Amino acid sequence: MRGFQTFNPQLNDFNPEWYYSSTQEEVAFAIEKSHKAFLSYSKSSPTLRSELLLQIVEELENAKSTIESFYCNESGLSKARFEVEFARTIFQLTSFSDFLLNHWTQLEIYTAGNQDLPSLKKEKRPVGPVLVMGSSNFPLAYSTIGGDSVAALAAGCSVIVKAHPMHVGTSLEVSKCIFSALGKLNLDEGIFQHLIDEGFEVATKLLKDDRIKAVGFTGSIKGGRAIMDLASKRKAPIPVFAEMGSANPVVFLENGFEEQINHFASLFAGSICNDAGQFCTKPGLIFIPKNKSGKELAVKISKEVLEYPSFYMLHPSIQSKFELLKKERESLVANSLIEKTGQLEPLQGRQAILQVDANEFLNHHQLQEEVFGPFALIIYYENKSELLDCLEKLEGQLTSSVVGNRIESPEFEEVIDLLSLKVGRLILNGIPTGVRVDEAMNHGGPYPASSDSRFTAVGTQSIARFLRNLTFQNFD
Amino acid sequence: MRGFQTFNPQLNDFNPEWYYSSTQEEVAFAIEKSHKAFLSYSKSSPTLRSELLLQIVEELENAKSTIESFYCNESGLSKARFEVEFARTIFQLTSFSDFLLNHWTQLEIYTAGNQDLPSLKKEKRPVGPVLVMGSSNFPLAYSTIGGDSVAALAAGCSVIVKAHPMHVGTSLEVSKCIFSALGKLNLDEGIFQHLIDEGFEVATKLLKDDRIKAVGFTGSIKGGRAIMDLASKRKAPIPVFAEMGSANPVVFLENGFEEQINHFASLFAGSICNDAGQFCTKPGLIFIPKNKSGKELAVKISKEVLEYPSFYMLHPSIQSKFELLKKERESLVANSLIEKTGQLEPLQGRQAILQVDANEFLNHHQLQEEVFGPFALIIYYENKSELLDCLEKLEGQLTSSVVGNRIESPEFEEVIDLLSLKVGRLILNGIPTGVRVDEAMNHGGPYPASSDSRFTAVGTQSIARFLRNLTFQNFD
Repeated sequence: MRGFQTFNPQLNDFNPEWYYSSTQEEVAFAIEKSHKAFLSYSKSSPTLRSELLLQIVEELENAKSTIESFYCNESGLSKARFEVEFARTIFQLTSFSDFLLNHWTQLEIYTAGNQDLPSLKKEKRPVGPVLVMGSSNFPLAYSTIGGDSVAALAAGCSVIVKAHPMHVGTSLEVSKCIFSALGKLNLDEGIFQHLIDEGFEVATKLLKDDRIKAVGFTGSIKGGRAIMDLASKRKAPIPVFAEMGSANPVVFLENGFEEQINHFASLFAGSICNDAGQFCTKPGLIFIPKNKSGKELAVKISKEVLEYPSFYMLHPSIQSKFELLKKERESLVANSLIEKTGQLEPLQGRQAILQVDANEFLNHHQLQEEVFGPFALIIYYENKSELLDCLEKLEGQLTSSVVGNRIESPEFEEVIDLLSLKVGRLILNGIPTGVRVDEAMNHGGPYPASSDSRFTAVGTQSIARFLRNLTFQNFD
Repeated sequence: MRGFQTFNPQLNDFNPEWYYSSTQEEVAFAIEKSHKAFLSYSKSSPTLRSELLLQIVEELENAKSTIESFYCNESGLSKARFEVEFARTIFQLTSFSDFLLNHWTQLEIYTAGNQDLPSLKKEKRPVGPVLVMGSSNFPLAYSTIGGDSVAALAAGCSVIVKAHPMHVGTSLEVSKCIFSALGKLNLDEGIFQHLIDEGFEVATKLLKDDRIKAVGFTGSIKGGRAIMDLASKRKAPIPVFAEMGSANPVVFLENGFEEQINHFASLFAGSICNDAGQFCTKPGLIFIPKNKSGKELAVKISKEVLEYPSFYMLHPSIQSKFELLKKERESLVANSLIEKTGQLEPLQGRQAILQVDANEFLNHHQLQEEVFGPFALIIYYENKSELLDCLEKLEGQLTSSVVGNRIESPEFEEVIDLLSLKVGRLILNGIPTGVRVDEAMNHGGPYPASSDSRFTAVGTQSIARFLRNLTFQNFD
């Protein structure tokens, strides 16, 4: 059996631990356990599920230093980032715990019967065992006990996590906390199953098994679409919620930013470069008017981006992809990359800006695709009509930011109307990174930003992805 | 150009009107109009959309006698049935109108900002132009301005209806009412488009066009799955809500029905035979204990079914399919059909019962599939374990009825638990036909009963099929 290791970007070396992909037998066993556990867990009370989530919180807190060590070693991310992501993960668990205690019953609808009509009670039921595939860039908050797993467990679904191969050690430490919580509450350990795969075999086998009833995925369009295709070809197709990233266009309107050029340049450069730009909400397309203020802004953003401290990318494969995509984009257009020069540490992402005119953007569809890493494309537009043409061409996006003066900008309404059709979240005069976890948040968007724009991946409403309807008629 | 006619089952003859399938140019034009109309209609106020639905009610009331005439001539259904379905159609319109006025804003979620976090407002937005394909068996309530169209219009979507070829005249009369309502409110007539096709070309072209953003369908598994497959293969896949029918298993528990054999026999025979059993919720599988009371019940049900007045089937093609399926089922098992004998009118459905043992049922998957028409399969089970084995084998269903004594039946809980995993609605001591239109109703179920068990096709919550999320950040 061939093993594999995770990689430490800061040390530019493999971590010492060896991991082995789950065998076909292990996968089959996990599915059967998950299926059986679902039969009882699906009938559990919201109170019990709430307790489970809180117990997981306790176990995570106890294991925090071990998790931190794996997290940093396997991602290259800082301790400060770990703290933020750990706190978010805990918050997701506690907010779902609170939801189960205080809001679950509000999902039920009851109508009394009368002499002509039967009584009806509509309940929400878990869809079944859910496959969750962790993301590379959020080893905690979108992975093993991240948003998808928590929502599924809160719904009453059993969960099979296929660990992201880049942070298997972190995933195993987190999974120990979940097993420990299940044990302390005397719950079936089949409620949570943890599988490992360096490649795609395990996920493919899981996706084809008719006992798996839904999928949560965070990652690339290519990966998400492959999952959607497998799920839709099954004898009984299943729902897939895939969050597949985004180029997150930013629109500087023709006026309203001139007084704050330094402020916005610094704000957006930070959003492009923080943690090497490895966020699905990183702003990747910056539309700027081709006037004096716009040019000044573009110069300032470029300068701030180049001067931003470089940071480690998550893995050598992510870094190579980033380098490749930057060069590909550059090859399409007249201008060259404005790229940070000088010596960086081996795994640090070399930030870059590329400037194009609107007509170049319109001629090359590829320019609108996400480049994962500290890179942004600046698109100069001559006038409103050119701007709207560009926005019209955009595919679905998680977010879009609009910067300017909503009252004095004659194009404001038209830009907002057009972007409203394309995105899941609109931000006024602010950056898209730093997602607020809240009921009013939407994380998702029209395809290919996500597989189904009717659902959000953030906030307790994300539970709707894993709940179906069951009405009891005449059961009074 | 080859035309086609609709068929009058009561007269056993074609209706006089000729219809012509929409041309490729007409389809292309309709899509563009629908797309353009969506851009403005999607921004309309809930009040305006509420007014539109009420105006459609007024127009339908004015055209009622013409609609009735086409309805009866094209379906063979009675005037009494027309009245019920017309009333239901009006109720769907008025209840969505009320929903828009009184509950729409409750879908919004607002969270105020503070010094650290931005304000968020999550709104619901229409997904885009929706393709609705009418059903053969509900020319009004599940067709042109049926549940799918009303939900989509209420959501702010433009709608393209592909009329069911069996009742194009009815569909055209209804569509005139919608155009008239749009005209009186000075709304873009592109909000509603009406296309005709005897075959599948129009629907296929619509489904492949990237301006169409969702689909509502009521019909066969074969048809629904073909739509799901086309939708999932698009460059940008779109959500499909397909309600694909069901065998609606009925379980008589080992005790609790003995005192009311005549009552239940008559009740379920009516549910099997009413309007020639042409309902997606018609009970098609009847599980009966192989004891003295069970045998008595089976005899009574069979007798009542045979004695029920025969009724017209919707179309010669539906009648031939029905005859074929009865014979196919019979060929699989030892027993012969218990079939009504004697002369019927040409298009009337010849009701029949087939009795099998549980092991025959377990050996032939086909026996669980829906037979559309006045037919039911009685499955005798020896004991609880045999019953549970049969239920375990069932695919997803719209409904299941359980008849018996919930307190004194030792198998009650187990049966309910198992069925809960398979169905969208559970009925205690009652029949599945006669769907109550209500918020607490669920019409849908695990695949293949519907394409997505997370949604209902009945009640105002069915609007969720056509709404996506959009969050405004920092727009205060």
